[in-house]
Amino acid sequence: MSAVATTETTAPVRIALLGAGTVGSAVVRLLTERRDRCTAALGRPLELVGVAVRDTSRSRDGVPDELLTTDAEALVDAADVVVEVMGGLEPARGLIERALRAGAQVVTANKQLIARHGMELDAVARAATVELGRPVAVDLEAAVVAAVPVISVVSEALAGDEITAVRGVVNGSTNYVLDLAAREGVPFADAVRQAGELGYLEADPTEDLEGIDAAAKIVILARLAFGARPDVDPARITLEGVDRTGIAGVTDADIAAATERGEVVKLVASARPDASAPGGVAVRVAPEPLPAQDPLAGVRGGTNAVEIEAVSAGPLLLRGAGAGGDETASAVLADLLRAARRHGRA
Amino acid sequence: MSAVATTETTAPVRIALLGAGTVGSAVVRLLTERRDRCTAALGRPLELVGVAVRDTSRSRDGVPDELLTTDAEALVDAADVVVEVMGGLEPARGLIERALRAGAQVVTANKQLIARHGMELDAVARAATVELGRPVAVDLEAAVVAAVPVISVVSEALAGDEITAVRGVVNGSTNYVLDLAAREGVPFADAVRQAGELGYLEADPTEDLEGIDAAAKIVILARLAFGARPDVDPARITLEGVDRTGIAGVTDADIAAATERGEVVKLVASARPDASAPGGVAVRVAPEPLPAQDPLAGVRGGTNAVEIEAVSAGPLLLRGAGAGGDETASAVLADLLRAARRHGRA
Repeated sequence: MSAVATTETTAPVRIALLGAGTVGSAVVRLLTERRDRCTAALGRPLELVGVAVRDTSRSRDGVPDELLTTDAEALVDAADVVVEVMGGLEPARGLIERALRAGAQVVTANKQLIARHGMELDAVARAATVELGRPVAVDLEAAVVAAVPVISVVSEALAGDEITAVRGVVNGSTNYVLDLAAREGVPFADAVRQAGELGYLEADPTEDLEGIDAAAKIVILARLAFGARPDVDPARITLEGVDRTGIAGVTDADIAAATERGEVVKLVASARPDASAPGGVAVRVAPEPLPAQDPLAGVRGGTNAVEIEAVSAGPLLLRGAGAGGDETASAVLADLLRAARRHGRA
Repeated sequence: MSAVATTETTAPVRIALLGAGTVGSAVVRLLTERRDRCTAALGRPLELVGVAVRDTSRSRDGVPDELLTTDAEALVDAADVVVEVMGGLEPARGLIERALRAGAQVVTANKQLIARHGMELDAVARAATVELGRPVAVDLEAAVVAAVPVISVVSEALAGDEITAVRGVVNGSTNYVLDLAAREGVPFADAVRQAGELGYLEADPTEDLEGIDAAAKIVILARLAFGARPDVDPARITLEGVDRTGIAGVTDADIAAATERGEVVKLVASARPDASAPGGVAVRVAPEPLPAQDPLAGVRGGTNAVEIEAVSAGPLLLRGAGAGGDETASAVLADLLRAARRHGRA
């Protein structure tokens, strides 16, 4: 019903992709499969002008060899929209900053980068917006729980409301481990090992097991949900300020005791305004026994769920796949269309 | 993180409100309470220039008398954004059309109007966009399940994906009745009467009980979810084409049999592509016994839930308040900010 047609150019929007891992390959494939749909939605085509990788000698599944380049900077300079799915802090941070300064739109799926440097990148985007006299911004739906559109709900759908709390099960790996232990009665240590063998945990599982992955996601959500409040300083909502406990210390006795009480242990990430906390928001990640009727208690395996409470809207629950190449690429594509529209208004 | 600051005017955006019922009064109150937040989000203030009602002699809760007017047309002509919360088909349709032709943005919470005339209004908006060379559109998040942001998820968050099915519990009144019968063992006829006494049903309860309210919502969702497919004609997805059965024919025996099987009877609205159906989409509203593990089975009382399946994102569940003055006004305010931003790009 949204008739924002255009009288503008129909020149292609030039897309630079940084990274060709699981998510990057899925983005390339979906851009091809959904070419017509994207062109129709946008009124002009999206053109993938290159894919920056560290090693062009290795072929990537579904990515045409001639698009591969090791010169990420030159690729960024030639793009209208830069899609960063390489992960890690550098060179991702520097490349995104370079893109924004030049007036390109940026889409990223990099939660650790945004949790650590999101405020700086936002400032760079704002400065570019003012200097160039047209909107320049970073879209980051894909950085938090993949295809579950929690970023746009917090920052757009509830833009006229007052959010009072955000809590969720936002790490599928630890949820898989806890599920296996609670539902199948697998000893906790074995559940961790099985999850590792099935590829549910990273090679270094610390980021999942210690709640660092969940902490990055809830820090980003906390800034967006509460950052506009006069009593909150989003720059002081940091990873270091998260009251964080992973699941490594959970014991079989904890799980048995919860089951006995009809409860389920989940790794819960939460954020709510609190004048005594850093930046004015208490951000926490910890294993919690939840009563069976809690909306987060029934979240199974790799599924993620986030509950947002707002003064007028009441509680909203969003539930879906929190990880996966295609699931993350779905969010990247939606952000790419948003970014391309913004570019079209330049 | 979205740094779309502006170098534009800071003149107020003029808002005309059509209707001062439950939702309208809540919009007026929230516009006052959240004035600073809205101004900060937008970079310019929202100014309510008038509220059109049928009878100005009657005072409205929280609405300043001097804003009331019976001259809706003059009010529309003076506005940048028209917010229609009067309900009914006329004069709402004519006023919205008048607003769009003049280049004003429109926000509506009127599901019956959009289900019946949404395609025509969309065409008027597109024509105005082309004629005026700037975007003119209708925002309608508030028309479907109040504060649950299903419209923006279907049309924006999944814009780069391919939706394969939409199904939901989208009518709180019938859900309250079914809940009362199944969980409390209240005879079905008594449950209907109790729901009426508690104000859960309209004075004429037909729209709820016969599934007409649910049909309007699923028709709107079906058009947005599938309208861009080459094998679908959204103009042929109509209220008349809905395969609709209300809950009036549900018996105590049906409910007892479902409970016996561990199932729950819900009024389910659904839409999925089907070449043999009108417009290429099978749209259905009917009471269905759902197994306990179905994501819609646990939806209680006035809560609504919608499950959307997409090829890449997988299944997404959205759950929240499906009705209520403040809940609907929350969605109206979010749409108002969207519409005001679009106006700012004029």
